[in-house]
Amino acid sequence: MMYRSLIRTSTRQLASAARPGTVRSYASTASQPFDWEDPLGSHNLFTEEEIAIRDTAEAYCQERMLPRVLQAYRDEYYDKKILEEMGELGLLGATIKGYGCAGVSNVASGLITKAVERVDSGYRSGMSVQSSLAMGGIEEFGTQELKDRLLPEMAKGKLLGAFGLTEPNHGSDPGSMETTAKPHPTKKGYLSISGSKTWITNSPIADVLLVWAKYSETGKIRGFVIERKDCPPGTLETPAIKNKTGLRASLTGMIHLDACPVPEANMFPDVEGLRGPFACLNSARYGIAWGVMGALEDCITRTRAYALERKQFKGNPLAKYQLVQKKLADAATDAAFGTLAAIQVGRLKDDGKTAPEMISMIKRQNCDKALSNARVLQEVFGGNAVSDEYSIGRHVANLFVTQTYEGQSDIHSLILGRAITGIQAFV
Amino acid sequence: MMYRSLIRTSTRQLASAARPGTVRSYASTASQPFDWEDPLGSHNLFTEEEIAIRDTAEAYCQERMLPRVLQAYRDEYYDKKILEEMGELGLLGATIKGYGCAGVSNVASGLITKAVERVDSGYRSGMSVQSSLAMGGIEEFGTQELKDRLLPEMAKGKLLGAFGLTEPNHGSDPGSMETTAKPHPTKKGYLSISGSKTWITNSPIADVLLVWAKYSETGKIRGFVIERKDCPPGTLETPAIKNKTGLRASLTGMIHLDACPVPEANMFPDVEGLRGPFACLNSARYGIAWGVMGALEDCITRTRAYALERKQFKGNPLAKYQLVQKKLADAATDAAFGTLAAIQVGRLKDDGKTAPEMISMIKRQNCDKALSNARVLQEVFGGNAVSDEYSIGRHVANLFVTQTYEGQSDIHSLILGRAITGIQAFV
Amino acid sequence: MMYRSLIRTSTRQLASAARPGTVRSYASTASQPFDWEDPLGSHNLFTEEEIAIRDTAEAYCQERMLPRVLQAYRDEYYDKKILEEMGELGLLGATIKGYGCAGVSNVASGLITKAVERVDSGYRSGMSVQSSLAMGGIEEFGTQELKDRLLPEMAKGKLLGAFGLTEPNHGSDPGSMETTAKPHPTKKGYLSISGSKTWITNSPIADVLLVWAKYSETGKIRGFVIERKDCPPGTLETPAIKNKTGLRASLTGMIHLDACPVPEANMFPDVEGLRGPFACLNSARYGIAWGVMGALEDCITRTRAYALERKQFKGNPLAKYQLVQKKLADAATDAAFGTLAAIQVGRLKDDGKTAPEMISMIKRQNCDKALSNARVLQEVFGGNAVSDEYSIGRHVANLFVTQTYEGQSDIHSLILGRAITGIQAFV
Amino acid sequence: MMYRSLIRTSTRQLASAARPGTVRSYASTASQPFDWEDPLGSHNLFTEEEIAIRDTAEAYCQERMLPRVLQAYRDEYYDKKILEEMGELGLLGATIKGYGCAGVSNVASGLITKAVERVDSGYRSGMSVQSSLAMGGIEEFGTQELKDRLLPEMAKGKLLGAFGLTEPNHGSDPGSMETTAKPHPTKKGYLSISGSKTWITNSPIADVLLVWAKYSETGKIRGFVIERKDCPPGTLETPAIKNKTGLRASLTGMIHLDACPVPEANMFPDVEGLRGPFACLNSARYGIAWGVMGALEDCITRTRAYALERKQFKGNPLAKYQLVQKKLADAATDAAFGTLAAIQVGRLKDDGKTAPEMISMIKRQNCDKALSNARVLQEVFGGNAVSDEYSIGRHVANLFVTQTYEGQSDIHSLILGRAITGIQAFV
Repeated sequence: MMYRSLIRTSTRQLASAARPGTVRSYASTASQPFDWEDPLGSHNLFTEEEIAIRDTAEAYCQERMLPRVLQAYRDEYYDKKILEEMGELGLLGATIKGYGCAGVSNVASGLITKAVERVDSGYRSGMSVQSSLAMGGIEEFGTQELKDRLLPEMAKGKLLGAFGLTEPNHGSDPGSMETTAKPHPTKKGYLSISGSKTWITNSPIADVLLVWAKYSETGKIRGFVIERKDCPPGTLETPAIKNKTGLRASLTGMIHLDACPVPEANMFPDVEGLRGPFACLNSARYGIAWGVMGALEDCITRTRAYALERKQFKGNPLAKYQLVQKKLADAATDAAFGTLAAIQVGRLKDDGKTAPEMISMIKRQNCDKALSNARVLQEVFGGNAVSDEYSIGRHVANLFVTQTYEGQSDIHSLILGRAITGIQAFV
Repeated sequence: MMYRSLIRTSTRQLASAARPGTVRSYASTASQPFDWEDPLGSHNLFTEEEIAIRDTAEAYCQERMLPRVLQAYRDEYYDKKILEEMGELGLLGATIKGYGCAGVSNVASGLITKAVERVDSGYRSGMSVQSSLAMGGIEEFGTQELKDRLLPEMAKGKLLGAFGLTEPNHGSDPGSMETTAKPHPTKKGYLSISGSKTWITNSPIADVLLVWAKYSETGKIRGFVIERKDCPPGTLETPAIKNKTGLRASLTGMIHLDACPVPEANMFPDVEGLRGPFACLNSARYGIAWGVMGALEDCITRTRAYALERKQFKGNPLAKYQLVQKKLADAATDAAFGTLAAIQVGRLKDDGKTAPEMISMIKRQNCDKALSNARVLQEVFGGNAVSDEYSIGRHVANLFVTQTYEGQSDIHSLILGRAITGIQAFV
Repeated sequence: MMYRSLIRTSTRQLASAARPGTVRSYASTASQPFDWEDPLGSHNLFTEEEIAIRDTAEAYCQERMLPRVLQAYRDEYYDKKILEEMGELGLLGATIKGYGCAGVSNVASGLITKAVERVDSGYRSGMSVQSSLAMGGIEEFGTQELKDRLLPEMAKGKLLGAFGLTEPNHGSDPGSMETTAKPHPTKKGYLSISGSKTWITNSPIADVLLVWAKYSETGKIRGFVIERKDCPPGTLETPAIKNKTGLRASLTGMIHLDACPVPEANMFPDVEGLRGPFACLNSARYGIAWGVMGALEDCITRTRAYALERKQFKGNPLAKYQLVQKKLADAATDAAFGTLAAIQVGRLKDDGKTAPEMISMIKRQNCDKALSNARVLQEVFGGNAVSDEYSIGRHVANLFVTQTYEGQSDIHSLILGRAITGIQAFV
Repeated sequence: MMYRSLIRTSTRQLASAARPGTVRSYASTASQPFDWEDPLGSHNLFTEEEIAIRDTAEAYCQERMLPRVLQAYRDEYYDKKILEEMGELGLLGATIKGYGCAGVSNVASGLITKAVERVDSGYRSGMSVQSSLAMGGIEEFGTQELKDRLLPEMAKGKLLGAFGLTEPNHGSDPGSMETTAKPHPTKKGYLSISGSKTWITNSPIADVLLVWAKYSETGKIRGFVIERKDCPPGTLETPAIKNKTGLRASLTGMIHLDACPVPEANMFPDVEGLRGPFACLNSARYGIAWGVMGALEDCITRTRAYALERKQFKGNPLAKYQLVQKKLADAATDAAFGTLAAIQVGRLKDDGKTAPEMISMIKRQNCDKALSNARVLQEVFGGNAVSDEYSIGRHVANLFVTQTYEGQSDIHSLILGRAITGIQAFV
């Protein structure tokens, strides 16, 4: 065989070349203490700057956001000042270069997202819409004029965005879109957009709505930037949806467009079909894959603390139960694995090496695992879990929503299945 | 707040410093094709040398090992020439520096392990014992004389090793060890070792047996290198265990020691208690975490091929079924996540930054996931799975054993639980 | 062998004796249509009267209860008129004979419970407390005077009961109870009870509170009937607990007793220790095992309807997806199996042949399966699940509570484990 | 409302009518000891005769079968004397009336099946083929002449049957059958059958082969009784399939028919299409649903015994571990629930009230649960599970096959899904 002895040769060279001066064997058993909050040492993969960003974001979220969330969730209230505060810190549209954005790596952006969702998935949703969907869409597909005019104010959180893709009858199937854009019958240089969108985060407070509609001239889907201040009365309505079973600290609504006039210059020039919205969604999904790890980690932290404090049967803490320890071990493992996967995709994203299916994979798996582990951890609280002050019920309810939006888990499994087999199985 | 604006500043510096000359935004949606055999692009994390080693190992395993395994498994036969072939290629004790070993990184070593277990977990077990347990133990704890004399021949696969820790009544609890070493009553400079070990891979063919026993002078566990050629008749017996339900291509046996005389110089000088065997086991467990991902990937490859070829109901391939696609998507996801975790721990191991619990985590999770996914994939073969020619049944049976040996899954969950909570819950 | 040919003889006799006049072979393949609402034909096991009771209860629940629940759940409001309506129909304390109660079989009682929980687990909780815990406890352990005086009014729903066992620090471990009853220092013939109970369903509106406390004279746990109308101001407080994450249509509160004077005649005469409260809980748990099957069936019905109506991808209903059909098949199976198990235990209960562990088994399994299937079905609703109008989110939140109260699932697994192995593993 | 008070009236009548003389309240908490071998008291549902049959079958299986199975499994050997012994005891074709068969109830038949599979699923397969598929098919669809001539000898186990439906390329899709029967070109009154069948239990030793083929005159599937003694050399070959990964104590083979002449009188007269084979399969599947509960119960018994005997960590038995107790509790629950469901379907079968989907439901669920629990219990044995002497590995391997044959689990979920939704989702 030609390849005999290859390894010994090549690796000896490697050893001397790549790590000059070291004579340490790789079989060394040196070890370090285990850190339950970062079980697989993911912090070793971050740059110093990324760690600084993470710490800033964590500090803000724990100090400023966390105290607001319990009441907000009870009342289904979203404090739009949060976006302004995030803007001040440079957390919005953070991967965008220029326009007053921070221009950080995708891993740094993931760390910000995780810090926010450690508090609440709804707060992360509010940020995702602003950063990934609205700003990201405009930066990727908008005209230079739109970018120059809108992005700086959006980065500050003074101009709020929304993203209108989903329609009442076509949740997982945007190709069947019914909203249309056609030449405005009376206003020259304008299009007239009509249709309804639903489950739109931030729609009731959005100043800038990125809406996708079928363009009558081509029958193809195009993107349009609708600016609320310019819409005549009655052409744009954005009623809130209330009585939600999850993400209650996030604001959700509909978008009703009734012959709404939109300047032709606000149509994205070069993107047709579902490629545009899917690119935006991919970016948001990447963020979700990070964010839900934050929510899961918060569940672990809270469960661990509860299990150590709560005594049952002869004064033993719950943490002494094998059945409780296994739940914690499972959750910590999935959190650690999911974080590593998110880091990997982030690095590849920086290098332009991601496939959309990679993002389907980490979005699906991390949401599924965050949800399933959170539910199991919730059991440790026993009857007390029903009190919202333990937060775990809120995370569980939120995480269910993250599993179903921006591609329900089954849909992503079919996307992956198609990529693996070459056969599509959507019915 | 002091931390306001920090991100924008720090990351702007980062952007210009770390990646000079680039003006690309990290929000870019450039993408690449999805590779179902490496869904999260782990190859981007390997050095060129690691890729060369992987390719060499894969070529050997697929070309030379694979054709032997079906019959070997049926017959419970282990061809010890395999270790010699591996030795020629530099695959044994590969992370050890010197003594004729390759001195490669822990990730390279993991890639070798994965290549072997892609063929069969039993073949990987045979290699693990030689490399991680026997050679690794001697390299870490043996005297210089033992290393100089034994390691070069072991690296060539001409001298075979075994590792005797487990006793019939103390599978998960080596602290209750009954094997003893005491001063030999008649041979000066010798110890006399008596006791039994079971489930010892390669014991029937081993030339060098690293055996752990309680040392009568201190009551502490110590390690001893027993060389078969020097054992008087009747003092060392190593009968094979037959009729196994898994790992049938691996040779398993017992070690019976009856007042076996061992030179005092063959006792490991500086290691007492369970630290010694646990260090060896940790190294082997690290390898298992890699190896089982190879077995799982082989299951995916075989299931995918079967599902594409097998037609049912109007000539549709099974691969068109949603229920089949989901199985493939789940398995591919766990294989990708598990591989990333193993890479991460490998890099930390090279840098002396691992905690033993990290290895518990990846050993447990990767074994659990390899097994559970392999079982689900096996369902795709329907009744045909019962034919051993499809290989999937063999992998399933093997993977069950990997889940239970070197720390059964539940034991590792309690090790992790203890690390997370600070409380031990072994009864 | 002595037993040869036994079967042929015995069964031939059986055939002719037990079923005279029939010549039909049992191998007949006659079949009937499948009923997805009763997949294993459980209705064949009910008497005519039981079916009549079921239909009455179902009609009341669907016509009168269902229209109230959505708003009640949103507002955390419990309409105590519901208990009065139930009383009019004979649904309260239905297994009790005499005292104006219906005296029905335990299966009939289970069917009532299931009908109520098909609407909402909170409404079922309200009924369980009145029927199984309060009335059941008084009927089983109270003096004749208490029975004669209280049960008839409780059966009518005009006198409301509560059951005070759980304390803030001892959820799963009532043996560590801190509430005490001691001779009243000033009122002769009275005891003075002090202590706190929490998670007490209906406590804020209860007229009659069955409270368990340690009796100072013996150190044993005894039961006491506290009548609110007789409590001096400040000795009994029953504040409501708000902001619950589940069972929001049920009223939950605390009980604070501060030297509350209770007549000695209100102490249960013949029951000491945990036997008393456990008997009551067993009865309530039996009801829960039935009830949650109702909630699960409602989830199935709603999911099926949604999946048939909702179209995605070329106008196909979701019901055409394999992944959706599997979810429905799994849920229908668990509902059918769980119902049969509940019927079996009910029949044995009528005959005095149950073991408490039987009730642990069906309570645990039915709650676990109702919850896990409801969660999976919820996925079918995709993003729409977040709207409370689809009801499925409400069931999921409720069912989590049923899994944790009256014995969290893990606790029941240890009760069963003890019964199976003879070894207790509570730490 | 018209239904007010209905319950109180109707149930009072019930109480006095149905159970005269009793004044016991149904709320009574009388209880009995828990029996871990029959957790939900299923024996209360059996007639005395059924219990006698069960005991006979259990005695035979434990005394005569069990000692043979370990070696048989190792050697892939099936002792056809077993069928003769069963015949002597009246265990074959036991539900058939007349022809020397026992004519017992379907529950009694289930109890026999369970007793056999408690020993080994392969032995049960051998019996199922003889009883349900071959004898059942002839009894249901054969001419009186065939019944009179064949059934009595088959009941004695002196004439062995096989059932040829599955073809190499059409496992789950018998409608695509390729085997054909056409008028014999030379032998008048004969048909000529050609084609191949695979995975046919007992084919190598069968005297009577019930084979399904497409009849050339109509294009419809018909059933044919092929008697080996009458087949000219070269027209019938039945090679064994070896090296199976499960059911190794059962004999499996192929059937190759090359212009095999079969008398027209051996064609089933009145059944066309898949109705015939499906009726036979339904009957066999019913038996599987019972049988696998026996295998699962054996796993529970063996695991419990091992866990009580095996000591780890300070001499505690494994049975003291919470994680072990939970595994036992889960398995015992599923065994109890599955047994009740099988009893229910058996009673309905006696009354001609089953739907085929009921049998899909219990076959699927009981096989799935037997397999999944057996796998979990296997973990308790740790490394020792790899020794075939503990039997658990054999059950696990067998149960995987039961899950995939006679309708793989997913196929049955789609059958159920179709019954629930009215929509077929086979691709």
